[in-house]
Amino acid sequence: MTETTQDERPEHGTGGTYSVPGQEYARDTRYITTRIVADPAPGSDDVAVEPGRFRLVAARACPWANRTIIVRRLLGLEDVLSLGLCGPVHDARSWTFDLDPGGRDPVLGIERIQEAYFRRDPEYPRGITVPAIVDERTGAVVTNDFAQITLDLSTQWRAFHREGAPDLLPPAHREELDAVMRHVYTEVNNGVYRCGFAGSQEAYDAAYDRLWTALDGLEARLTDRRYLVGDTITEADVRLFTTLVRFDAVYHGHFKCNRQKLTELPALWAYARDLFQTPGFGDTVDFWQIKQHYYRVHTDINPSGIVPDGPDLSGWATPHGREALGGRPFGDGTPPGPVRAGERVDPEHTPLR
Amino acid sequence: MTETTQDERPEHGTGGTYSVPGQEYARDTRYITTRIVADPAPGSDDVAVEPGRFRLVAARACPWANRTIIVRRLLGLEDVLSLGLCGPVHDARSWTFDLDPGGRDPVLGIERIQEAYFRRDPEYPRGITVPAIVDERTGAVVTNDFAQITLDLSTQWRAFHREGAPDLLPPAHREELDAVMRHVYTEVNNGVYRCGFAGSQEAYDAAYDRLWTALDGLEARLTDRRYLVGDTITEADVRLFTTLVRFDAVYHGHFKCNRQKLTELPALWAYARDLFQTPGFGDTVDFWQIKQHYYRVHTDINPSGIVPDGPDLSGWATPHGREALGGRPFGDGTPPGPVRAGERVDPEHTPLR
Repeated sequence: MTETTQDERPEHGTGGTYSVPGQEYARDTRYITTRIVADPAPGSDDVAVEPGRFRLVAARACPWANRTIIVRRLLGLEDVLSLGLCGPVHDARSWTFDLDPGGRDPVLGIERIQEAYFRRDPEYPRGITVPAIVDERTGAVVTNDFAQITLDLSTQWRAFHREGAPDLLPPAHREELDAVMRHVYTEVNNGVYRCGFAGSQEAYDAAYDRLWTALDGLEARLTDRRYLVGDTITEADVRLFTTLVRFDAVYHGHFKCNRQKLTELPALWAYARDLFQTPGFGDTVDFWQIKQHYYRVHTDINPSGIVPDGPDLSGWATPHGREALGGRPFGDGTPPGPVRAGERVDPEHTPLR
Repeated sequence: MTETTQDERPEHGTGGTYSVPGQEYARDTRYITTRIVADPAPGSDDVAVEPGRFRLVAARACPWANRTIIVRRLLGLEDVLSLGLCGPVHDARSWTFDLDPGGRDPVLGIERIQEAYFRRDPEYPRGITVPAIVDERTGAVVTNDFAQITLDLSTQWRAFHREGAPDLLPPAHREELDAVMRHVYTEVNNGVYRCGFAGSQEAYDAAYDRLWTALDGLEARLTDRRYLVGDTITEADVRLFTTLVRFDAVYHGHFKCNRQKLTELPALWAYARDLFQTPGFGDTVDFWQIKQHYYRVHTDINPSGIVPDGPDLSGWATPHGREALGGRPFGDGTPPGPVRAGERVDPEHTPLR
């Protein structure tokens, strides 16, 4: 097991308090960096891709896990990589399988994803995070390195992609893609957390300015182009989408990212709706679970645990007009088919019909 | 000193915690109900109107006090009823004159409005609230019955109104006015607090539904009429305005009144801007003080005390188009003149130019 070394704190994991008085928020980026690859290098601790062997454990609430659910579906990996889903409200110890019958994951047979971390390392010392990929044979976590997981689903699992799967990391644009994805991560995906978990007014003010500088830039970039990079959907779009779809429901109020709502940013709002209505995106989003998660778990910033009844979500299903910008959503490929039974979002939790 | 008896808790006063776990929010409505009237009834503890004798102590942050500041200015009572202003952030004991040089009200010579309450009653047992009217001769609070104060400014101080003062309680509409004002108070002015200070999810859900039922009704009512009652500005408009002007800045996020922003409700947003741009309304509003107050004082719902930098307020100065609905804002009267020196809102704290 190797680790990245940047000493930051987790959030998509579990860890008690999130904002530290007087401090700027910093994310723990030390993950289990074992990879699942097509050809493991001799001497590495990487393991080989194998259909039917691994289970992706995610939670619909979590934006970092949502990213993996979208990519798995866009690439059509459902038959080779199974999906386990934790409920929205974890406790201080672990995300739990409280949505499953009997409170146990039907494949792994465990109640808490923490158990799979302890099978990997009985003294596992860091945050218990989703997404995690578990070896169904050993019941141990193979990796929870969310930033690498989706890249590997695109590049290492290629032999098992569905017919018509899009190329989410087109080589012709890879350099630009990496730069944009890095920007989206540091400024937006993580930028909203930097606002919400700021430990001082000064740290918050700086985080707010930094976030809105980035959103203004993205608003301008997306005004006359349909997608972030090239003319097709890429992983950069997946990464930006998972933050945008949570923006008005959570980040605007709970994290004080409130200069405007997403619905007040014309290009970003239309872009987000376009993706939301594209198979593979909106059909993975459970707004109820998202709100339950943030408002009930972060008791240090919402002590009552009361979950807002707003915002009205009906706008997500309205026409976006982005087709006028051209673009080929799936490039030379095709959209994924309907969501399979057992993986559908509760229709009460989404405006998608 | 008489009291109303309904046992509810204060908020525009001081009182430590605001939301009580498991409970619905209930406002303390026991006030000092002495009145300042044109002709005190024998045997009552009411006192006679007298120019230059009384001081209105308010705080720009507080919606109940904002109501009195607006009415005083619309009626042109500045020369006969002086104005003292507390800062936005009171402590558990009292609102304070921390904005004044030396931290003392220049007329009353006190640091905390609590001192004027104790001159009235050394054992004053309830919330220290604004607005309060203080007798400059004795330094004691005469009344803090905010619901009565503005009614009396209109009806009992009439001999001292400016030339061209509007009739905010036109007798021809008084019955309808009283019904609308009661509705605005219970459903909207207090309705946002019922959401924000709900002590359980159930109490919040019910409060949210009740608030939005009322706002939907007002949105419909104001779609084809310029003002709430009749075709002129009345006290009902003053009362609705003080909540609407705080809606996006505070109630939407901090109190979880987040089905829509005010800016998403076409009639109410245009109505609020129309009033905001009318002399006597927007020129009394200090958005900075409003945000400081709510986010720093209610530490039980915002423990960090961090004040959001949003929302963008520039929309308040944009055209509203409500003139097309007709109406005679000041009836047979005229708008008030410019705000006098010493009573102007810090230009950094308002989008009004």
